Amino acid sequence: MTDTTTDGVSTTQAAIEQKLTDSVIASFDNTPDERLKTLMQALVKHLHAFIREVRLSEDEWSQAIEFLTKAGHITDDKRQEFILLSDVLGASMQTIAVNNPASGNATEATVFGPFFTQDAPEIPIGGDLSGGAAGQSCWVEGTVTDTAGNPLAGARIEVWEADEDGFYDVQYNDGRTAGRAHLYADTEGRYGFWGLTPTPYPIPHDGPVGKMLEATNRSPVRASHLHFMVSAPGQRTLVTHIFVEGDPQIEIGDSVFGVKDSLIKTFATQSPGTPTPDGRDLGGASWSRARFDIVLAPGMKTQQPPLSRPKEKTHG
Amino acid sequence: MTDTTTDGVSTTQAAIEQKLTDSVIASFDNTPDERLKTLMQALVKHLHAFIREVRLSEDEWSQAIEFLTKAGHITDDKRQEFILLSDVLGASMQTIAVNNPASGNATEATVFGPFFTQDAPEIPIGGDLSGGAAGQSCWVEGTVTDTAGNPLAGARIEVWEADEDGFYDVQYNDGRTAGRAHLYADTEGRYGFWGLTPTPYPIPHDGPVGKMLEATNRSPVRASHLHFMVSAPGQRTLVTHIFVEGDPQIEIGDSVFGVKDSLIKTFATQSPGTPTPDGRDLGGASWSRARFDIVLAPGMKTQQPPLSRPKEKTHG
Repeated sequence: MTDTTTDGVSTTQAAIEQKLTDSVIASFDNTPDERLKTLMQALVKHLHAFIREVRLSEDEWSQAIEFLTKAGHITDDKRQEFILLSDVLGASMQTIAVNNPASGNATEATVFGPFFTQDAPEIPIGGDLSGGAAGQSCWVEGTVTDTAGNPLAGARIEVWEADEDGFYDVQYNDGRTAGRAHLYADTEGRYGFWGLTPTPYPIPHDGPVGKMLEATNRSPVRASHLHFMVSAPGQRTLVTHIFVEGDPQIEIGDSVFGVKDSLIKTFATQSPGTPTPDGRDLGGASWSRARFDIVLAPGMKTQQPPLSRPKEKTHG
Repeated sequence: MTDTTTDGVSTTQAAIEQKLTDSVIASFDNTPDERLKTLMQALVKHLHAFIREVRLSEDEWSQAIEFLTKAGHITDDKRQEFILLSDVLGASMQTIAVNNPASGNATEATVFGPFFTQDAPEIPIGGDLSGGAAGQSCWVEGTVTDTAGNPLAGARIEVWEADEDGFYDVQYNDGRTAGRAHLYADTEGRYGFWGLTPTPYPIPHDGPVGKMLEATNRSPVRASHLHFMVSAPGQRTLVTHIFVEGDPQIEIGDSVFGVKDSLIKTFATQSPGTPTPDGRDLGGASWSRARFDIVLAPGMKTQQPPLSRPKEKTHG
């Protein structure tokens, strides 16, 4: 047939579909805010391209509506299924990539995650952020510098992590604070603290996003990691993690695509009795140590952290 | 700079972003169901292309999450904000276009809408579907044939419409049935019934979708229309409307993009006292008449109507 394109859609049909897309795009022509206009018109263009490319069936459309409805209904002030959806589709990570372009030797950014809180206690350099959370003790140290290698004295370092069972304090039922703190780099830009050796844990997967991961044979598990948010005047605030070299989940795949090669660090296991850097007595337990030298990119604005995410009480 | 492409994104940065997209796509490689794999991988491709093209900010990402959350929370068994969203982005209409390709002279399809019910009463040819709903009486007649012009005797014709205030019976609070019925074509494929002259009405616009329409200067109003769903053995079930020639909303823009030129019909106003086709006495009121000859495309499967949508009690 002369009226058939290579993908089996007739040119007449393709023209009908394109005309519809064009008219939806044109319906946003009078949007007063130029940026909103750009966003809506691009959204329509890509949404229609998806529907046309996959030849979405009416039944598949219905399933998509049901998926979104279920995601909406499981979402409350403790659970945010739409953020999970964005995370597992790599949309969160792509947004971070777009907003944190590579800047020389600056440390790479990764996902913020839903477990940050504003009220973590301050600890001194060498302090312990575990707050009684269970896990293997871990000494983390490093420096904070700008891209020219100048130390950033007084840089603020927020750190947060899960316990060895994979739970953050906000997932406990008793309201206590554990596994999180902030501290400040010294005049040489140096920092160091005691935390816990990171372990893998699943994102909440008892909702529609978890069902989607199951149907697609994907793991809900996040690679073991320790969260950092580092800020200093005149520098772009860095939201990142460090990951544990050798964690098998890195090969299996981090469920939210947060891993970057430059963020994988050696967490060297120390046998029981190995002397600690600050002489702390760990009662004969094994421990680990890692080094993370942080380089901030220049930036005039101090970037706000993303949407303050509701605390997650549900856990997979 | 040699490391800059025309849209201002460096080739290094573009490569980082593409690598992320590729790894998210690859995460679906082990999906057992081939169709689901195709859908998820295409969804990721287009979603990432959107984020990268518009350079989505982290604040805009947060607003998108909030929009979806609000849409989820307003959705219940009476209100379906995600369907409204799909409708106003033209996604519903594009899905219909993809699934109902032009077939010779067959009548074109359009959106199903949220107001169909399975239990509309049967009326004889010449019967009245208004059920006491307010509005100007309207005589509609025509034929149902296949694409070769053969009459489709006994074709089932479902018709539903809003009253002159823009409300469907499912939006009343008293549970009565009005403005809907089904009837069967005669042995010559002919049909005719009394209904109401269609009038424009807004989709529910007190939620996030309504706010988006307002922010983009778009009208929430649907062009005046009368819904049809027509089925016959061996034919593709047709879901469509007819629209009212001269309705200014056709020029302003139907809020869900349902209008097709071939579906715009003359609703000829008849002055009071004009004799009716069946001698019915309208008590001296004016009335209108329209003709709609329906041509069904061949189709082996009798297509199911789309997702049974919850009844909408909220009205804009």
